[in-house]
Amino acid sequence: MGLKRRLYDALAPEARRSGLSMTNAAIVGLVILSFLFLALETEPTLQAVPAWQKTFHIFNVGVVIIFALEYAARVWCAGIDPDYRGLRGRLRYITKFYSIADLLAFLPELLLMMLGSGSTLLVLRVLRLARLIKIARFIPAFEALGAAVRRASSLLLTSLALAVTLVYVAAVLLYFVEGVGGVQQEAFASIPRAIWWSVATLTTVGYGDVYPVTPLGRFCAGLIAIAGIGVVALPAGVFASAFSDELRERELSSLRSELEQTKADTAEETLDE
Amino acid sequence: MGLKRRLYDALAPEARRSGLSMTNAAIVGLVILSFLFLALETEPTLQAVPAWQKTFHIFNVGVVIIFALEYAARVWCAGIDPDYRGLRGRLRYITKFYSIADLLAFLPELLLMMLGSGSTLLVLRVLRLARLIKIARFIPAFEALGAAVRRASSLLLTSLALAVTLVYVAAVLLYFVEGVGGVQQEAFASIPRAIWWSVATLTTVGYGDVYPVTPLGRFCAGLIAIAGIGVVALPAGVFASAFSDELRERELSSLRSELEQTKADTAEETLDE
Amino acid sequence: MGLKRRLYDALAPEARRSGLSMTNAAIVGLVILSFLFLALETEPTLQAVPAWQKTFHIFNVGVVIIFALEYAARVWCAGIDPDYRGLRGRLRYITKFYSIADLLAFLPELLLMMLGSGSTLLVLRVLRLARLIKIARFIPAFEALGAAVRRASSLLLTSLALAVTLVYVAAVLLYFVEGVGGVQQEAFASIPRAIWWSVATLTTVGYGDVYPVTPLGRFCAGLIAIAGIGVVALPAGVFASAFSDELRERELSSLRSELEQTKADTAEETLDE
Amino acid sequence: MGLKRRLYDALAPEARRSGLSMTNAAIVGLVILSFLFLALETEPTLQAVPAWQKTFHIFNVGVVIIFALEYAARVWCAGIDPDYRGLRGRLRYITKFYSIADLLAFLPELLLMMLGSGSTLLVLRVLRLARLIKIARFIPAFEALGAAVRRASSLLLTSLALAVTLVYVAAVLLYFVEGVGGVQQEAFASIPRAIWWSVATLTTVGYGDVYPVTPLGRFCAGLIAIAGIGVVALPAGVFASAFSDELRERELSSLRSELEQTKADTAEETLDE
Repeated sequence: MGLKRRLYDALAPEARRSGLSMTNAAIVGLVILSFLFLALETEPTLQAVPAWQKTFHIFNVGVVIIFALEYAARVWCAGIDPDYRGLRGRLRYITKFYSIADLLAFLPELLLMMLGSGSTLLVLRVLRLARLIKIARFIPAFEALGAAVRRASSLLLTSLALAVTLVYVAAVLLYFVEGVGGVQQEAFASIPRAIWWSVATLTTVGYGDVYPVTPLGRFCAGLIAIAGIGVVALPAGVFASAFSDELRERELSSLRSELEQTKADTAEETLDE
Repeated sequence: MGLKRRLYDALAPEARRSGLSMTNAAIVGLVILSFLFLALETEPTLQAVPAWQKTFHIFNVGVVIIFALEYAARVWCAGIDPDYRGLRGRLRYITKFYSIADLLAFLPELLLMMLGSGSTLLVLRVLRLARLIKIARFIPAFEALGAAVRRASSLLLTSLALAVTLVYVAAVLLYFVEGVGGVQQEAFASIPRAIWWSVATLTTVGYGDVYPVTPLGRFCAGLIAIAGIGVVALPAGVFASAFSDELRERELSSLRSELEQTKADTAEETLDE
Repeated sequence: MGLKRRLYDALAPEARRSGLSMTNAAIVGLVILSFLFLALETEPTLQAVPAWQKTFHIFNVGVVIIFALEYAARVWCAGIDPDYRGLRGRLRYITKFYSIADLLAFLPELLLMMLGSGSTLLVLRVLRLARLIKIARFIPAFEALGAAVRRASSLLLTSLALAVTLVYVAAVLLYFVEGVGGVQQEAFASIPRAIWWSVATLTTVGYGDVYPVTPLGRFCAGLIAIAGIGVVALPAGVFASAFSDELRERELSSLRSELEQTKADTAEETLDE
Repeated sequence: MGLKRRLYDALAPEARRSGLSMTNAAIVGLVILSFLFLALETEPTLQAVPAWQKTFHIFNVGVVIIFALEYAARVWCAGIDPDYRGLRGRLRYITKFYSIADLLAFLPELLLMMLGSGSTLLVLRVLRLARLIKIARFIPAFEALGAAVRRASSLLLTSLALAVTLVYVAAVLLYFVEGVGGVQQEAFASIPRAIWWSVATLTTVGYGDVYPVTPLGRFCAGLIAIAGIGVVALPAGVFASAFSDELRERELSSLRSELEQTKADTAEETLDE
């Protein structure tokens, strides 16, 4: 078995029936680690320490090189799959959604490094979030996410529309009670400002930077809170339950197909005997 | 086909089997836009800018004119429906709930504009919320809202009564512990004030403007919070689940009727052959 | 039909097959009103106004007299029921739970009024909460409350124990991280104080009077919040779902018995013909 | 029946078909009491009072002695069970998970007391949490906890991964909007700091120590809150529902086995007659 074949088996998620290959597991780990470093890198107290600065630089260079090599290997061994054979096929391969994410995960930083710029530009760091897509392909749950959204799309849209309407109406009400009438609070001086209160209250986050102070305002806010909380939680709840249903179904169907496979294998063995 | 017929098909929601006509979709869009502008219009920082002021004025005039024309068109072509034919029918049409909402959506502002007053009175802005009813007729979910409330009405009332009782009893308790005894906190100096704390706590909003400070008060508040949170969330949860059940049923029944239609069409075609 | 019989029909909740008699509905309304007044009465800004003071006094005297009369009438006409006939029966009647609540709802205040004390003592106001029990007898949902607790008692206890354990362990953890180590925050200086933070966080109330400030403390708090929130919400959720199940079952069974009754009536009518 | 046998029946949870023996109930009570005292002991205002100090000391010594005696008794009478007979068996017994927890619950403090140190070291107090395991063996629900985690493990992991991803992405977004751009808020000056905001918001705790102040930041935060709250609540919700399912099943199966037992007993009796 040639190097290309072995690379293909190690890299392509379709090559293995279940589970991740060692190489892909390592890539997932590296991506998670790179997110951890991305977070630490932005911390001013660490930026002030030269040793950390150096660590960040070395890590970033290392990650970019590894992902560049991985990309090259992926493009090279994609030819094992008949769909991506030849120059035409390769072109088809590198224009795939996941391939573009793979490219974005290292190319901008690589170019900058080759141009000799020591520090990484801020905006390039955001592009590192493309690495999320890199690992999304290995984790079935991320695919289930999209399926869950499609599954409950009309219910999601309706409940979202209802939540937004409620937030808006609550804000208009409190704007009139606290902002225009009442004590003319700064925080309720316009509907957009009142919406900030409305969102914070109806999601029950309640930062406490804005709240009604007049008796009437508090009365309205109390009624809105008791009546509205479940409604604003509805879209997230709908999505959460669709997502969990989707996951359960996938688990069931994968169990079932495994069982089928086992039965087929047993039947084959019995025939062999 | 005359203009009246074409207008009727474009405007009446009953005229189309499913989906919105282009005209109605545009009206929905305009209403949403007018809510966005209503919000921006109240923002003091934008009110200070003449360019924005002018934009608001032009937009408002435009919207009022469009809605006035739409109203006239609706009343004129209502005659296509035998129920609203003739002067008697038209009278019946314009006294309908939705027609009154259509009228409220533009008339007060139109009158003021014709009287030459440049600025719109504040209270008229609230009447713009009537535009919510304008679009409610096109969105089946808003109708489902009322059905959901009726469906779970007795359960809703009971859970609401329980929630209100719990809020009241918790307020009385903390009033005695923190307001009368304890350190005589201002925020717990009366039961109505304690209710503000009680609502903020039992809905888990927790602004943090009011909270018990004595050990006994904190002990009671902790017990109330652990025991009571789900109870106060009950009415909103009951409504949310009734609403989502209602939506799901409607979707199912619309799918079923579509299937029936398709079957009937197919049977017809088979007979034709 | 004598006065006693008519009073019995008007007062006893068992006398009517469904719904409340006018008298009892009035009593429920009066109790709710008396709770509203109890709340207003404690408000210092109203206490300072002589007119309000007078209103409160008249209202309280009126309510006490009405409830005293109601109690007398209840005891008198209880004799209609064979169980409570005679002196023995009456004694059995007035020692019932609901009768004692009826007595507590007016007697202490009545005594004080007769002794000539103008103002009502504070502690007597709490006894007015006994009026809650007065109306509990008419509202089937309050009875369902107890049934729901019994129904889910073992599940409730277990989930409550788990919630309390989690609150305790989270408090101990943050006490060590923020109180003993870290920056020795006052608010985490002992486990009981840390429990206040723990309850406020795990119920998601989050007043914001207490929160971790060290990176390690925030890391722990974040983990605890993500992992623990659903667990602490469990007892209230268990109760809420048991309560709503109980209500739905009761509604179903009352509908069923009504149906049975209607069927029986129809059958009777058919036989009559 | 010898002392050993009676001790075994009193101590071993396996010795009784259902319920706790008096001795074990007393131990559970003592552990709960010791947690209460552990909390009080850390309170500075009580530490300053010599009487409380003395009470704590006496209580701690007493608890350590009782648990030491209990441990000795457990090891001694473990021989009743054939599995733990002889020196070999005892060794097997004392290396069990629960036995080690029993040992940790008193040994460190006992050693310190014997070495003459009057005060208990702080870190030893944490070891008292091992007493939680002591009582876990008697309460079936704690065992159900582990079973619930195993039951929903894959769903739990996936939803946890999703929640963490959402928290991270929300933090990165707000870091760019509020920290780097916007008004360069201290609280959003790095991704780790923004994560603190992100966790507090998406769990709806909302302490209010950190919140966006720019219009764009508030807009993003509002969207994130409405869309994300249910998702972050997902892992805890998944666990809560798995736990409650587990408890219900256990209750059902214990009821069923009790019923079987009763039937078998009745059958036996019938045969006897």
